[in-house]
Amino acid sequence: MGGYNPGSHAIQAHNAPTGAFFFDERSVSMEKRYVYLDHSATTAIHPDVLEAMMPYLTDEYGNPNSLHRYGQRAQRAIEKARRQVAAVLNCSPREIAFTGCGTESDNLAIRGVAFALRDKGRHIITTPIEHKAVLQTVKQLEEHFGFEVTYLPVDEYGRVSVDDVARALRPDTILVSVMYANNEIGTIQPIADIGALCRERGVVFHTDAVQAGGYLPLDVDALNVDLMALSGHKFHAPKGVGVLYVRRRTPWISMMTGGGQEHGMRSGTQNVAGIVGLGAAIEIAHTDREAKNARLRAMRDHLVGSILEQVDDVQLTGHPTERLPGHASFVVSNVDADSLLLGLDLEGVAASSGSACSSGAITPSHVLSAIGATKREAMSALRLTLGDDNTEEEVAYAAEAVPRVIQRLRQYART
Amino acid sequence: MGGYNPGSHAIQAHNAPTGAFFFDERSVSMEKRYVYLDHSATTAIHPDVLEAMMPYLTDEYGNPNSLHRYGQRAQRAIEKARRQVAAVLNCSPREIAFTGCGTESDNLAIRGVAFALRDKGRHIITTPIEHKAVLQTVKQLEEHFGFEVTYLPVDEYGRVSVDDVARALRPDTILVSVMYANNEIGTIQPIADIGALCRERGVVFHTDAVQAGGYLPLDVDALNVDLMALSGHKFHAPKGVGVLYVRRRTPWISMMTGGGQEHGMRSGTQNVAGIVGLGAAIEIAHTDREAKNARLRAMRDHLVGSILEQVDDVQLTGHPTERLPGHASFVVSNVDADSLLLGLDLEGVAASSGSACSSGAITPSHVLSAIGATKREAMSALRLTLGDDNTEEEVAYAAEAVPRVIQRLRQYART
Repeated sequence: MGGYNPGSHAIQAHNAPTGAFFFDERSVSMEKRYVYLDHSATTAIHPDVLEAMMPYLTDEYGNPNSLHRYGQRAQRAIEKARRQVAAVLNCSPREIAFTGCGTESDNLAIRGVAFALRDKGRHIITTPIEHKAVLQTVKQLEEHFGFEVTYLPVDEYGRVSVDDVARALRPDTILVSVMYANNEIGTIQPIADIGALCRERGVVFHTDAVQAGGYLPLDVDALNVDLMALSGHKFHAPKGVGVLYVRRRTPWISMMTGGGQEHGMRSGTQNVAGIVGLGAAIEIAHTDREAKNARLRAMRDHLVGSILEQVDDVQLTGHPTERLPGHASFVVSNVDADSLLLGLDLEGVAASSGSACSSGAITPSHVLSAIGATKREAMSALRLTLGDDNTEEEVAYAAEAVPRVIQRLRQYART
Repeated sequence: MGGYNPGSHAIQAHNAPTGAFFFDERSVSMEKRYVYLDHSATTAIHPDVLEAMMPYLTDEYGNPNSLHRYGQRAQRAIEKARRQVAAVLNCSPREIAFTGCGTESDNLAIRGVAFALRDKGRHIITTPIEHKAVLQTVKQLEEHFGFEVTYLPVDEYGRVSVDDVARALRPDTILVSVMYANNEIGTIQPIADIGALCRERGVVFHTDAVQAGGYLPLDVDALNVDLMALSGHKFHAPKGVGVLYVRRRTPWISMMTGGGQEHGMRSGTQNVAGIVGLGAAIEIAHTDREAKNARLRAMRDHLVGSILEQVDDVQLTGHPTERLPGHASFVVSNVDADSLLLGLDLEGVAASSGSACSSGAITPSHVLSAIGATKREAMSALRLTLGDDNTEEEVAYAAEAVPRVIQRLRQYART
C-alpha cells in the first residue's frame, strides 16, 4: 500500500516513473532519514499525477477556450478531470468549478451566497474553529457589509452539535458554514446531519472539506451540502488548483467574473495541468480509500500511543475516534512550540504547530482556545499528520524521535 | 533569438532540456507542419521555466508557510520569484501578490478598490474594449452594488484619449481602469498619461496589463499605475498563476481572505511551482525585450503585408503602429469566422477570432463593435499572434497558408 514515498528521497527516486526529476543535489542517502509528517499542510504530487500532468506542461499547452486543436485537446482534458471529480462527489460535472486553491473556493462560496441573498437576510452561522479562509471572510462580511455572524459552541473535542445549529437558525439566516474536518485537531463534524437540518429550513449549507478531501466520503447528496470546497495539494495533486462544488439552483453569484469559464462559475483561463492533476489525484485518493485509511489509522495510533506512553504532560487534542485517519495532534506542556518544531526538523521530522501559518510566527491557536485550552496550551500545539506515502519504518522512527526531542527540550529548559 | 519552438514539435523535442517529456505519441514529424499563431490566447511554457519549476513539482513540495525545511525552501523560492517580478516592475516585492490568474488579479483589483471606497463614491471609469475580466466585474458592481460606470469613447483604432478621461472624471469617481494593450486588436493605450492624470486628481488607476506583460515596459512608476494585473501563461509561464501589483497605500481591501499569505493581499497556499515559473519567465521575457520585439514586429509586418497583398476585402484592425509587436488582427469579409479557424487548423495554423471564447461559439466582438465595425464585420475577426518561439519559416508558411484558406472558403461560398 502507499507505494510511492516522497518523504524519503531514496525510496521516492526508486519508484518514480519520472525518475530524472527525483534525483538532484538535494537527494539524501537512506542513512540520513527525513520523515514528512505534515500532510495536513501539503502533500507531494503523486508520481502518477505528475505523469498525467506532464503533457499539459509541455506539448499540450493550448488554452481550453481556443477553437483549434490545441484548445480542444486541453478542453477535453479538463472535462475528463471534471468527470473524475463529479464521480467522487456524486454530482453533475456542471456543478463543479475548478478554482485556484481551497481558500479561493471558500471565499467564492461564502461571498457568493452572502451577496446573492443579502436582501433576504444577513445572518451567517459558522464555528469558531473554521479555517481562516472561512473565518476571515465572514469577519469581512461583518465589518464591511453589515452581516451578523453567530459562532456555534464546540465541545472539548471541537465537535458541533446539530441541536446548537437548530437553536442558532433565525428567519434571516442565509448561510451555514461548518467544516467537514478540522485542520488543527482532525475532528470530523456531523456534516450530513447539519446539512439535513439546513435543507429542512431552506438555508444554504457550505462545508470547507479541504482537510477531508483525500480521506472521507465526498458524496454531496449523502452529505446534504450545497457548496463544498476542496484543495488539490492536500491529496497529492499540485498546489494552485481547487474545487468548488455548487449545487444546482443554489442562490449564488460569482466573485470571479470575466470570460465565463467553468460554466460561468469561475472565470479565468484554467490551470489545465493542475486540473488534470487534481482529477487524477482525487481518483487515486478515493480508490481503496477505506483500506488506506485503516492503514493510516493503525500507524497514527501507534505513533500517538508511543508518544503518550513515553512522555508525560502530553495531551491528545481533538476527538479520540471521530478524526481524520492520519491525524495526530497534541498539546505538549512546558515546551516552546517553535523550538519543538525546529528540534524535530533537525532530527529529521517535518511537523507543524497546528496550521501552516503565513506569518511564520506561532500565535495561540484559535482552535485550541475554542475547545477550552489555556493561552499557554494554545501555544504548545504539535501536529503530526501522516499520508499514504509514509512507511511503517518512518512512523517507527518518528515514534522514537518525537519523545526524544520533547524530553531533551524539557531538560534544557530545566537546566 | 527565440531558440525554443513549441509550435513545431520536432524542433521543440530537440531543444528541450527535459527531453523525455517532449517525445510522446502526439509528436509529429517535420513534414506535417503545425504553426502556433495564437500567443495572445496562451503560450507554451519555456523549457528553462519548466526546468526551474520541476523541483517544486517533485522533491520540493513544502508549503511555504511551514516552519520546517521543506516549508522554508519553498518560501525562499517564492520570495526569489517576487524579487524577479519586482525588478521588472520597479517596485517593492511587498507590493507584489501572486494570484491564480490574470482574471483573478483584475477581479481582486477592481472589487478591492470599489468596496474599500464605496462610501467615498461609486463612479468607475473604464473603456468598452476591456477584457471581460474587467467588463463583467464593473457590470456586476453596477447591477448588484449601486455603482455607476462610464465607458470612455475609443477611436477607430481602439485608442482612448486622455482628454476624454479628464472629461469623464467626477468628484465621486473612485477608480479608472484602462487596459495597457488590447487582446483582440493589439492597440496600446497611453497608460502613463492617463495614470498621471489620475494621480493629479487623486483617483486610483488600474491597468489590465495581461497582454502587455511579456512585451511592453512594466515600470509601475513610469506608468503611474496603482494596480496592475499580469498573467503568467501569456509570457511562457504556466497557466494558473498571475500577479497583482498593489501600490503601497492604495485604498483597497482583499476579496481573498484567509491565512494572510502574500502580505495579506491574497490568502491561500501559494502555487509554488507556478510562481517560480512566473519569476523565471518574466525575467526571460524582459531580457533583450526590444530586440525580440523588433524581430516579432518584422515577422508580423511580413505576415500582415503578405495577407493584405494576396487577398481582397481584408482589413487590418487596431492601431497600425501603436500595437503589440507580434499582434496581427483583421476583419475578413465574406468568410465565416468559424470556418476560417477550422480551415486554418486543418492547414496547420492555430489562430483565433479575437479572444479565447469560453463558450466555443463565435459572437460579435465587443471590441470591434466599439471601434465602429458592423455586426457582420464584428463576427469576421481573425487574430494571428506571434511569439518568440515562432520561426521565420513558420511565418512564411502562414503567410502562404492564410490567404490560400481564405480564398478557398470564399470560392466554396460562391459555388
